[in-house]
Amino acid sequence: MLTRIGIFNLKLTITSTTLNISSNPILRRRTISIMAQRSIAVAITGVGLVGSEFINQLLSFSLPSTPNSRYNPFKIISLSSSGHTLFSPNGLEVTSTSWKDSLTQAPPKDPKDLISELSKLASGSSYNGVVFVDNTSSDSIASLYPLILSQNIHVITPNKKAFSSTSTLYESIKAASLTSGAKYLNESTVGAGLPVVATLKDLVNTGDKVKKVEGVFSGTFSYIFNEFSKPGETEGGEKFSEVVKKAKALGYTEPHPADDLTGSDVARKLTILSRIIPSSQPLPEGYLSVSTTSLVPDPLLKSDANEFMSRLPEYDSKFDELRDEARKNGEVVRYVGVIDLEKGSVKADMVKYPKDHPFATSLGGSDNIIMFHTERYGKRPLIVQGAGAGAAVTAMGVMSDLLKLL
Amino acid sequence: MLTRIGIFNLKLTITSTTLNISSNPILRRRTISIMAQRSIAVAITGVGLVGSEFINQLLSFSLPSTPNSRYNPFKIISLSSSGHTLFSPNGLEVTSTSWKDSLTQAPPKDPKDLISELSKLASGSSYNGVVFVDNTSSDSIASLYPLILSQNIHVITPNKKAFSSTSTLYESIKAASLTSGAKYLNESTVGAGLPVVATLKDLVNTGDKVKKVEGVFSGTFSYIFNEFSKPGETEGGEKFSEVVKKAKALGYTEPHPADDLTGSDVARKLTILSRIIPSSQPLPEGYLSVSTTSLVPDPLLKSDANEFMSRLPEYDSKFDELRDEARKNGEVVRYVGVIDLEKGSVKADMVKYPKDHPFATSLGGSDNIIMFHTERYGKRPLIVQGAGAGAAVTAMGVMSDLLKLL
Repeated sequence: MLTRIGIFNLKLTITSTTLNISSNPILRRRTISIMAQRSIAVAITGVGLVGSEFINQLLSFSLPSTPNSRYNPFKIISLSSSGHTLFSPNGLEVTSTSWKDSLTQAPPKDPKDLISELSKLASGSSYNGVVFVDNTSSDSIASLYPLILSQNIHVITPNKKAFSSTSTLYESIKAASLTSGAKYLNESTVGAGLPVVATLKDLVNTGDKVKKVEGVFSGTFSYIFNEFSKPGETEGGEKFSEVVKKAKALGYTEPHPADDLTGSDVARKLTILSRIIPSSQPLPEGYLSVSTTSLVPDPLLKSDANEFMSRLPEYDSKFDELRDEARKNGEVVRYVGVIDLEKGSVKADMVKYPKDHPFATSLGGSDNIIMFHTERYGKRPLIVQGAGAGAAVTAMGVMSDLLKLL
Repeated sequence: MLTRIGIFNLKLTITSTTLNISSNPILRRRTISIMAQRSIAVAITGVGLVGSEFINQLLSFSLPSTPNSRYNPFKIISLSSSGHTLFSPNGLEVTSTSWKDSLTQAPPKDPKDLISELSKLASGSSYNGVVFVDNTSSDSIASLYPLILSQNIHVITPNKKAFSSTSTLYESIKAASLTSGAKYLNESTVGAGLPVVATLKDLVNTGDKVKKVEGVFSGTFSYIFNEFSKPGETEGGEKFSEVVKKAKALGYTEPHPADDLTGSDVARKLTILSRIIPSSQPLPEGYLSVSTTSLVPDPLLKSDANEFMSRLPEYDSKFDELRDEARKNGEVVRYVGVIDLEKGSVKADMVKYPKDHPFATSLGGSDNIIMFHTERYGKRPLIVQGAGAGAAVTAMGVMSDLLKLL
């Protein structure tokens, strides 16, 4: 809402000459065009793979201003990496090739000092709103969201930390947003560019009753279980440790595969989604309270990546048993997340599905798939499926959030 | 943008006491709360199944205004059926049970007179924007959108007519929206409440390159071909005319099934989507230019529903042949819509798919499924699936568009 106060201030300066603004069509059009071309200021923190791709998408964006001309409504006013910050209240001269060199030569800046500068812009009249885009996965940046939002600066981020950790932080974020009117948008925290968060919000906000959300929320687990437990195979098949090795070689896992296999990434995503759904039963307080089955064998909890990979075959027999058991019933094994509103439970675990179930038949590569079982969609759920990780599609989710502010 | 002029006018009236608005946090908060609680005015035309369900969803909606209280930011200012209009510039007293009786007792009102009243509200300061919601499937209402938009009134609708007919009307709509700043939103014209239009816009606006959009866009065709051509059946199976009869009995077709079987509904949806995608090659000028295979046999073009149903079995052999041909290659038959950007073609037709393809395996009931093949999503498309027809999910699409205006 404070954005509008910004608009109001701008309007005041031209009021004396345009008080007949809504009755004179020519003046009206001109004023509108001035307003339309005031930019939204974008402050970007985190310039890794996702951040760089986001900058490219942002620089390429344009809107029609007349039937024959277009303009970019966004202006980048700051860029921050861990040790450097470029900031200009009037907008940086950023091209897709120039910014990396400039940034590495820039001095550091305390994030709180940056926020204080952004705050001045948010309460001033030069911009049609200020947005802080956090493309890091940093806990410390996430902990600043309440402060940022309280200064009427919008927050957009693929960073799961703030929305999946303690409910204290989450409640502060909601309260700060409610008080200032600044928005937080986090579409790309679940399923990257897939419309998952927005779809769930739409279901809830339009009054549908969500009964269950279940899905393959991790690209890593998707690849591993699609390869390990194939609907067409009735015997044999690769060992679990072999599949993990292949996944690592293809870049589908973190450098240390155990970071994926703990399931905590899935637990974080489930926490984010569960917080959007009204529930009569208490849902987990944070991702640590989600019932999560880790696939990291206890004795390997402290192994480094090399030891982990070399000792993982010792545990193949347990996975073989599970696969055999599933096969006997015409089923496959998938690592899924389930939010069951009727049971009031949130779980990240291996579950068996019939071999004609979409989790068995439709998935390939490292696709995510998410099913929304609701009252309105009856017996057949609403399904969203596709790549759920990768810089381009994650940046797309961030960019699509930014477009919601237009 | 004119909405904002509305805000500006309101602000002027309180300026004298709150010029220090952004520096005094208490005054700031109070002003924000005044602004937040100014409503968006909603004028609803069409109160059939979708319209009634939309009214229910609208009345049930609320937003938090403080951590402990909620409010509904929308106010219904008019309701119109074909012969009656209720209008009150200050908002109608509408409850989910009361409006039907009041409306049937109301006099008629020329839509242009209504628009003229709405126009006054849109340029005034009482509301935070005015929205015209068209829940009819009327061509004549659709032809008024340019006028409505030019008066700075937003248009939200599940009515496909305006967006799939001549490009002349569509271009007028775009031009009126661009000039006034009023928005038109039509999520529910394709796939009802499924996120299809918004997803395509996000892909395009974030710079992805769309290569092909293909899908089962019709609930009627989905049901008919899911039953007629099953991936598990290698011989026999129901006759085409028997399946159509069943579909009609279950309410999956229009009262006259030929209205669905012409494929023109699919052609309209393809036109709507194709107009969102930038293309180097010219796409169809309107739905009549979409290459569309009608399943209505020529000799039955003028039959009434009874004659049509009783004579349809005469044409079963052609469908049997097609099914046999598909089976020989391990395929099924589906009636799909395809926008191929590389070929520059838009087609509504029967196509054969391998029996492990999602169009063969994942569909059930009258589900829609839409695949977006893009540069960014690589070899594995982004998929959206679920019920694509029905009052509740269509109204949800309309309501989700309305929420985008908040």
